[in-house]
Amino acid sequence: MKIDVFFTPVGLNPSDLAGRTVVVLDVLRATTTITVALAGGAKAVLPAASTEEALRIAQNLERDDVLLAGERRAVRIPGFALGNSPQEFASEAVRGKTIVMTTTNGTQALIAAQGAREVVVGAAVNFALVVQRARAALEQHSDLVMLCAGRERQFALEDAFAAGRLTKVLLPEGGLRRVEVNDGALASLEIARHFGERWLRALRASAHGRELAELGFREDVKACAEENTHPVLPLYADRRITAHRPPNEG
Amino acid sequence: MKIDVFFTPVGLNPSDLAGRTVVVLDVLRATTTITVALAGGAKAVLPAASTEEALRIAQNLERDDVLLAGERRAVRIPGFALGNSPQEFASEAVRGKTIVMTTTNGTQALIAAQGAREVVVGAAVNFALVVQRARAALEQHSDLVMLCAGRERQFALEDAFAAGRLTKVLLPEGGLRRVEVNDGALASLEIARHFGERWLRALRASAHGRELAELGFREDVKACAEENTHPVLPLYADRRITAHRPPNEG
Repeated sequence: MKIDVFFTPVGLNPSDLAGRTVVVLDVLRATTTITVALAGGAKAVLPAASTEEALRIAQNLERDDVLLAGERRAVRIPGFALGNSPQEFASEAVRGKTIVMTTTNGTQALIAAQGAREVVVGAAVNFALVVQRARAALEQHSDLVMLCAGRERQFALEDAFAAGRLTKVLLPEGGLRRVEVNDGALASLEIARHFGERWLRALRASAHGRELAELGFREDVKACAEENTHPVLPLYADRRITAHRPPNEG
Repeated sequence: MKIDVFFTPVGLNPSDLAGRTVVVLDVLRATTTITVALAGGAKAVLPAASTEEALRIAQNLERDDVLLAGERRAVRIPGFALGNSPQEFASEAVRGKTIVMTTTNGTQALIAAQGAREVVVGAAVNFALVVQRARAALEQHSDLVMLCAGRERQFALEDAFAAGRLTKVLLPEGGLRRVEVNDGALASLEIARHFGERWLRALRASAHGRELAELGFREDVKACAEENTHPVLPLYADRRITAHRPPNEG
């Protein structure tokens, strides 16, 4: 059994992800926001690498069905309908819509993960479902990757904590003796050990959490720290993120 | 007071290092080996980005005074006099020589640090002197950076541990309340908390440490884990690493 944690998509080799199940984590805020949007009834979220690409993708969709979303330096891109606050993505705003989204870190990580077998969008708000899916991947393929978005190409504490918390929950009985982990996974476990299950404390300790609070997004940080408020499992395939429906629900 | 830890040189912005004192850490093995070489009487170590650049630099030096050193995939580059094992850099081999060196991770991190005000080469083997110099930088400029070489553009546990151990020792009374740290520094402190002062345990737990042992470099890992065996402070300036002599010894 093998669990790898990468702290940023920068420096990844294609072989790090190819043929593997990857959980992408950008807790503050993109993967949280995407989960909230799909829980609110959005049809799909389409990640775009840049503002220009977002506009190009949107042009090829029905005007009434599409919403542009995204931030630069934490603030909504001028002219876009939505920023990157989970609260903006409540049901009324997004139901039935296709959201084209570009953010500084999260969408970059998602795009980097495109070569993987399966890409799961993970956050605190859908933690239990992510654990379930990740455990299934470990049972079927003995293999899992967590890809942290990080922040501006560097390490971010909040995503490393999320990866550590996930790794800790997934460790088989017998712990590290029964699983092969990379250095990132070992480090993330130490961070998770420090914060325990206290998402909010970890998020508030991070540089990004502190900056969001200063910019007036304190409520966002709180919303991003709540476990299982939005039990939806977003999967990213063919350039679209959609809510996974278990087969028996048709 | 400000302490930043970066886990790899990848993703650095020029402003992350400009005008600051930077401690470069590649404990397994380049910064250890460089320290051992200078302790053994080498005149200088010149980092090179590639085998080709190493050859080019060497051509401009007196043939009898120069030694080529370096590894790829942990093994000595064919035709080079030395690899990257600290043991190869004992006094007899290196005394009076200028060593042109290229390694997979360490020399890349050094080259990335070139824009800094002062670049200190740090390892376990010269830990006390690095602490002393880092503390002086904090007292004079309230500012310090630790740049981990990492491994093949990714996070490496051994360097993160070294950064955490150094951060821990340098924290002022009052701890984190009295110093501004980035997320990397916070994470490195958790790793240091786990391993305490046990360098060998941290190095052996790292993927790099385990691979070196498998490749027959078990003694290297041990040598790299010993504190203060080579009390020399290498400084990197004008593309040369030389042993710092305090002014009063001048």
